[in-house]
Amino acid sequence: MKTISLMQKAYIAGFLDGDGSIYVRMKPNDTYRYGFQIAPYVVLFQSQKDSENFKKICSLIDLGYIRERNDGILEYIIGKEDSIRGFLEMVTPFLILKKEQANLMIKILDAKAKVQDKNDFHALAKLVDRFRELNYSKKRKRYTLTP
Amino acid sequence: MKTISLMQKAYIAGFLDGDGSIYVRMKPNDTYRYGFQIAPYVVLFQSQKDSENFKKICSLIDLGYIRERNDGILEYIIGKEDSIRGFLEMVTPFLILKKEQANLMIKILDAKAKVQDKNDFHALAKLVDRFRELNYSKKRKRYTLTP
Repeated sequence: MKTISLMQKAYIAGFLDGDGSIYVRMKPNDTYRYGFQIAPYVVLFQSQKDSENFKKICSLIDLGYIRERNDGILEYIIGKEDSIRGFLEMVTPFLILKKEQANLMIKILDAKAKVQDKNDFHALAKLVDRFRELNYSKKRKRYTLTP
Repeated sequence: MKTISLMQKAYIAGFLDGDGSIYVRMKPNDTYRYGFQIAPYVVLFQSQKDSENFKKICSLIDLGYIRERNDGILEYIIGKEDSIRGFLEMVTPFLILKKEQANLMIKILDAKAKVQDKNDFHALAKLVDRFRELNYSKKRKRYTLTP
């Protein structure tokens, strides 16, 4: 990660609070040991109209990649777990709106790294569920373990 | 205006770049001397789901008021000219995406304060048009002065 100033970190925190997203996808996938792929993300969004300056912001962060969606929105995607951790450690002290999500995401990364059995996985899945509640994604189905 | 730290200013700049808007409305209105009302605004947006923390950000700024739209989006509206000026002087050094808009808005406020005749008003209207180009609001009609 680049060395950036406290002011730049605070700016990026503001940008994330304004127009970013912290989330975890939990997708059924039989190739994974416990039947689910757990994929954490931090994403910043921007319309295409000012891609040059958006790229400046992204290059300050330098932990992800830019993707252009079909609808023209640019996404800066931080998907590697070390990068998410590094990014959140950098901005969390300055976050206001997404501080709780950031702290919970760190807990999820910790729990994910330690999964050794089904109970560990169950605990991780509960954290992911709590995360979804924070983000109010009521549309998606909850993960449920068969007893 | 409150005294806030450089880090808080940088955060607010990031929030504005991510999820805010700087714009000028120019509405035909016969009660105004030159036939138009020129109304500059700075607005921050947030969905209602985290209004408590959004209010914290707004109270840091303390230069506008919160309005709840019919679709549930909260807007923090800074509409008084002195407040817009104060706000932009505070955040512009940290802006990346909206720096050009911020600088042009200051020019518009300066020009607006100095309008004494039709030529002055014409110059002001041209600045407002340039502002619209920056914001890509191609939907709206351009202001045109009859020659």
